[in-house]
Amino acid sequence: MYFTSDNAVGAAPEILDAIIAANAGALPSYGAEPMMAAVEATIAGIFETDCRVFLVSTGTAANALALASLSPPWGAVFCHRFAHIEVDECGAPEFFGGGLKLALLDGAEGKIDPSGLRDALRATGAGGVHQVQPAVLSLTNVTEAGALYSADELSVLAAMARDAGCAVHLDGTRFANALVAADASPADMSWRAGVDVLCLGATKNGALAAEAVIFFNPQRQADRIAEFEYRRKRGGHLISKSRMLSSQMAAYLKDDLWLSLARRANSAATRLADGLRAIDGVAIENSVDANMLFVHLPVAVHRALLAEGARYYLEPPSQTDDGDGHRVRVRLVASFSTTESEIDAFLAIASGA
Amino acid sequence: MYFTSDNAVGAAPEILDAIIAANAGALPSYGAEPMMAAVEATIAGIFETDCRVFLVSTGTAANALALASLSPPWGAVFCHRFAHIEVDECGAPEFFGGGLKLALLDGAEGKIDPSGLRDALRATGAGGVHQVQPAVLSLTNVTEAGALYSADELSVLAAMARDAGCAVHLDGTRFANALVAADASPADMSWRAGVDVLCLGATKNGALAAEAVIFFNPQRQADRIAEFEYRRKRGGHLISKSRMLSSQMAAYLKDDLWLSLARRANSAATRLADGLRAIDGVAIENSVDANMLFVHLPVAVHRALLAEGARYYLEPPSQTDDGDGHRVRVRLVASFSTTESEIDAFLAIASGA
Amino acid sequence: MYFTSDNAVGAAPEILDAIIAANAGALPSYGAEPMMAAVEATIAGIFETDCRVFLVSTGTAANALALASLSPPWGAVFCHRFAHIEVDECGAPEFFGGGLKLALLDGAEGKIDPSGLRDALRATGAGGVHQVQPAVLSLTNVTEAGALYSADELSVLAAMARDAGCAVHLDGTRFANALVAADASPADMSWRAGVDVLCLGATKNGALAAEAVIFFNPQRQADRIAEFEYRRKRGGHLISKSRMLSSQMAAYLKDDLWLSLARRANSAATRLADGLRAIDGVAIENSVDANMLFVHLPVAVHRALLAEGARYYLEPPSQTDDGDGHRVRVRLVASFSTTESEIDAFLAIASGA
Amino acid sequence: MYFTSDNAVGAAPEILDAIIAANAGALPSYGAEPMMAAVEATIAGIFETDCRVFLVSTGTAANALALASLSPPWGAVFCHRFAHIEVDECGAPEFFGGGLKLALLDGAEGKIDPSGLRDALRATGAGGVHQVQPAVLSLTNVTEAGALYSADELSVLAAMARDAGCAVHLDGTRFANALVAADASPADMSWRAGVDVLCLGATKNGALAAEAVIFFNPQRQADRIAEFEYRRKRGGHLISKSRMLSSQMAAYLKDDLWLSLARRANSAATRLADGLRAIDGVAIENSVDANMLFVHLPVAVHRALLAEGARYYLEPPSQTDDGDGHRVRVRLVASFSTTESEIDAFLAIASGA
Repeated sequence: MYFTSDNAVGAAPEILDAIIAANAGALPSYGAEPMMAAVEATIAGIFETDCRVFLVSTGTAANALALASLSPPWGAVFCHRFAHIEVDECGAPEFFGGGLKLALLDGAEGKIDPSGLRDALRATGAGGVHQVQPAVLSLTNVTEAGALYSADELSVLAAMARDAGCAVHLDGTRFANALVAADASPADMSWRAGVDVLCLGATKNGALAAEAVIFFNPQRQADRIAEFEYRRKRGGHLISKSRMLSSQMAAYLKDDLWLSLARRANSAATRLADGLRAIDGVAIENSVDANMLFVHLPVAVHRALLAEGARYYLEPPSQTDDGDGHRVRVRLVASFSTTESEIDAFLAIASGA
Repeated sequence: MYFTSDNAVGAAPEILDAIIAANAGALPSYGAEPMMAAVEATIAGIFETDCRVFLVSTGTAANALALASLSPPWGAVFCHRFAHIEVDECGAPEFFGGGLKLALLDGAEGKIDPSGLRDALRATGAGGVHQVQPAVLSLTNVTEAGALYSADELSVLAAMARDAGCAVHLDGTRFANALVAADASPADMSWRAGVDVLCLGATKNGALAAEAVIFFNPQRQADRIAEFEYRRKRGGHLISKSRMLSSQMAAYLKDDLWLSLARRANSAATRLADGLRAIDGVAIENSVDANMLFVHLPVAVHRALLAEGARYYLEPPSQTDDGDGHRVRVRLVASFSTTESEIDAFLAIASGA
Repeated sequence: MYFTSDNAVGAAPEILDAIIAANAGALPSYGAEPMMAAVEATIAGIFETDCRVFLVSTGTAANALALASLSPPWGAVFCHRFAHIEVDECGAPEFFGGGLKLALLDGAEGKIDPSGLRDALRATGAGGVHQVQPAVLSLTNVTEAGALYSADELSVLAAMARDAGCAVHLDGTRFANALVAADASPADMSWRAGVDVLCLGATKNGALAAEAVIFFNPQRQADRIAEFEYRRKRGGHLISKSRMLSSQMAAYLKDDLWLSLARRANSAATRLADGLRAIDGVAIENSVDANMLFVHLPVAVHRALLAEGARYYLEPPSQTDDGDGHRVRVRLVASFSTTESEIDAFLAIASGA
Repeated sequence: MYFTSDNAVGAAPEILDAIIAANAGALPSYGAEPMMAAVEATIAGIFETDCRVFLVSTGTAANALALASLSPPWGAVFCHRFAHIEVDECGAPEFFGGGLKLALLDGAEGKIDPSGLRDALRATGAGGVHQVQPAVLSLTNVTEAGALYSADELSVLAAMARDAGCAVHLDGTRFANALVAADASPADMSWRAGVDVLCLGATKNGALAAEAVIFFNPQRQADRIAEFEYRRKRGGHLISKSRMLSSQMAAYLKDDLWLSLARRANSAATRLADGLRAIDGVAIENSVDANMLFVHLPVAVHRALLAEGARYYLEPPSQTDDGDGHRVRVRLVASFSTTESEIDAFLAIASGA
């Protein structure tokens, strides 16, 4: 009953097998192995467009390197105040970006409110050289609050950003979960909606450690792409035995594995939500678009779950287990490996408490 | 009728004379001139405590260098969202600080609301290594919105910060204006209230280009002080003919010149405010604690003033001269050199329009 | 016949098996898995001293993060001009170190000449705040030119550095190869010789992607260690499914696997060297202390080897395959997986040409 | 008898007068004062070409900001190992340049040896993404060792650099001294020789604190120029009362004052050299092209001079006043304000000792 995060389990078997299969023999290093070119071609096919792809081993590296390529040091990166780049990367974007600034926006369930973005784009940098300048809009789909942007919603925000001269970055740590939730195509949920660079996560959805940074429209982004390679190397993120990354990504995308894994995670979350809704005193805060739930649990339920070995994170303001004295606020994340029996056991404890 | 800023005029005559007087002869460079030691001793006397003092030529340099000495690159610097370090320094703190993060707080008239600070201190960095850590509280007195913190108000905020392990920085661009407004001692308005480092402005109050960075309690801050010297040099802010700076600062502080100049500026603002309050349709937004007014002017008044040569800045949301169609929001700043006749001329135009 | 680098092959079977074995089940992430604590304890045992250990996935990350923890931005890091940190990391030390400076030293076979170090330590920073200050001595063992420092040689250099107030960093990408070549203990070749931080490589000696940063004397280095964790996170080098790293390192060190693998690589290099010495017109430039050879090959031999599928790098000044018209200068690197038959095939071609 | 540096005295009277004259009245700030546009036009006239000009208050700021605009963080800046940017700026280029690397070259009297540059340009970055890439050639004229590059010598080096895709920066701290020594035109000694950005010093030649960063061919360098403005601001180098800088530079260039001042300094150095050559046991090391001498003084002479109040710097290896036991190596710098009687007094002591 491990619901802390979708990174608490290891790799999906197909991906582990791919690492094993790729291990034999001598190969060019540093991304020059043939499998890397194949991954790039696969991604171009899936996204129905030309692109350049780089692999790294963490989402923080993917996001920070991408943003550094999209923004000058005096740029403002607009993002939701819940965004991973703001909350969970210990300032990696500022570090890789030479001291750039994150400009925080509001909106329900981690989705940026368009009118807030409009105001921010207008106000930022209006003082000329005295101020940082609008540079990037960074979106996250699925959001950190578990909600889904539709392709149309992404398009509206991206269009505003582009009108203001900004590039558009999409933190797609849970991009596969978003795709299956939206039942939309990868292209519609990324470049057709105005995204310049997608950080396509795999680690949280079945890989061991692999993320793809995808530059769409590579001709137009040639300078950024050239920069990216140097930034990745000097960031220590150019893996020598790079087959370790390309083999994972190849398996992840093969035969729609990524979508199957995400579908499992999302379904598990739905099952969990359905069960929790039936329990007296439990309230689910979000709409459970994908694989995350934000839930208010009666303290007694929470204690029973902990006692039986369930694991999940308390969310602010519940820094301690007594929250407001009656209920605690918790985050539950389902993954590709969450089983029905695990969920049912969890629900049994919760309803029994 | 130049009310754009207190940096629109040159130096006060006493300060210009000091630059001239210091020009003759050969002297050690880079701060080793005898006058620099004298300035440090003078400041120690005025502030009634031991301290280390460094001079630089801009307020942005003073603030950014100070913050870099107080915060690690993974630190959060808490400041009001109107703070100069956030709004007007093009990311200098992030640049000098190796990618640190400004954490923005709210509060009326540019003064940080204590309960907001309390919440922010508690929430920031709670996620451990994934998050930037509380490092500095940066206050501004007089605030960018023209308001005054009392010594007690400063103490309350500083105490919260220190309890959370933060250093306290005071942007004192208009520190002299604050002192005369509060009728308080330099010590009470700085280190006795909990300030570790004061950036004491002179440029906006009669100097040509001179700011002092004052480290109180130098024994305790020995490491920061040692760092500061290297940071200043590699920031290009160690002036070779450093008499240029020390002569200004010496004159600025001599015979309470700094207080006299600030008193003139504050009085001019009061006179201006009194006059404007009497004009129909004009509304003053702030309490005019010091030398700045935020004023809503009827468009007709605004146009008449512009036509007669008055100069000042429009403030958001008045990016154009028609604001909401009826009134524009403007900032008026009085300086040591603002004359009564200048004010009266301004008022005459305004009341005639 | 792949002699390009010891990173051209995949993982040793024991290490791959460990990754597979560690894949099952839910675990704490980000280095909190129990296996990470075990790795730290194992390393403490092997090195006969208390230490703190952090794992990352590349040698460039290990070195650059370590140096950033040991040097301020205004520090000089003394290293050989052939050092990996100077030649092969695209400025990673300067990037992570906030703009620190590498100060280059000379010496035969990549080993720093002590008298050169003495002079450099004396001269550097003598101009006070105008100059970067001595901060770190960075050594590499086995050197990039394939030579071995003895424990005594390390001690002499490290003592000079410490007398000048510098920390000592050891790039141990090929530390295991050095150990077996020197037949010395890990402790003697590191902290007993004066090393503060060892970057212990595994990737080039049988791991897939794993390097350990080892801080000796952790009480004395508590501040650096605390910093390191933030630097690693904001560098994007804190792997979520960290079992990926700890499982590799555990297997690497278990039952002296690391030494066995290095012994194989060194032996292979010896066999290769012995065979090449017998071939007319071939000259080996270095003393082949470990697993690297720098060899001058007649052009005809070089062409025959290429034609038969041998792979290795040309070294400056041989940017093209005709070098000085008669011989080319090449680097040959043996790895744990180099076989006797591979070597013998290579030698047969070379002697037949 | 102050021969420590050409920054030991204050401003030339004409420049001090200009500061005074510019002090009156309200003006736009931050470089928007009319005098700044006039300075730019004057410089365009003197250099016979279109250009963009920015003023800052220190040479370190000018150099570091210029280099940051010319090089990416993964760039190599080629310079002589005696260059101010390497020896005397405490890593400012690395700081402003986001961790760029200075690649050091040799050559007599601080002048880069062309064959050394050719080799370095060929070798640097040949390893692709693993290495920093050739970005800038930084020249200094007059060199830090007091020697003059002719226009032809500059052209040869600049052409090599441009062929390798590098920009060319000229540290012109003593550019006026070079001009009068070479009897060449400003254009021939800068852009016609291939210089992209000239840092034109004034501080060491009669200003109080003013340096111009001149971008030639502004159309081609439009991106760099746009960047420069943000870099200057966030570096804290955009002076609010910018008349302080523009008035100095205007006076400096008016009626060839800069050339007159430099001529005085160079003549004083010649007189000093002529006198010293006649003294037994004194040896002048350099050719005294401009205003600097590197001299070996018998210890007795040195002690007599010190005792009589002469001031100058000991140069390595003479860290103490007994050098090799017989002679000390010293640097003597003449300035615009050095008088004949000062020189004659110095010579009288030296010859009497």
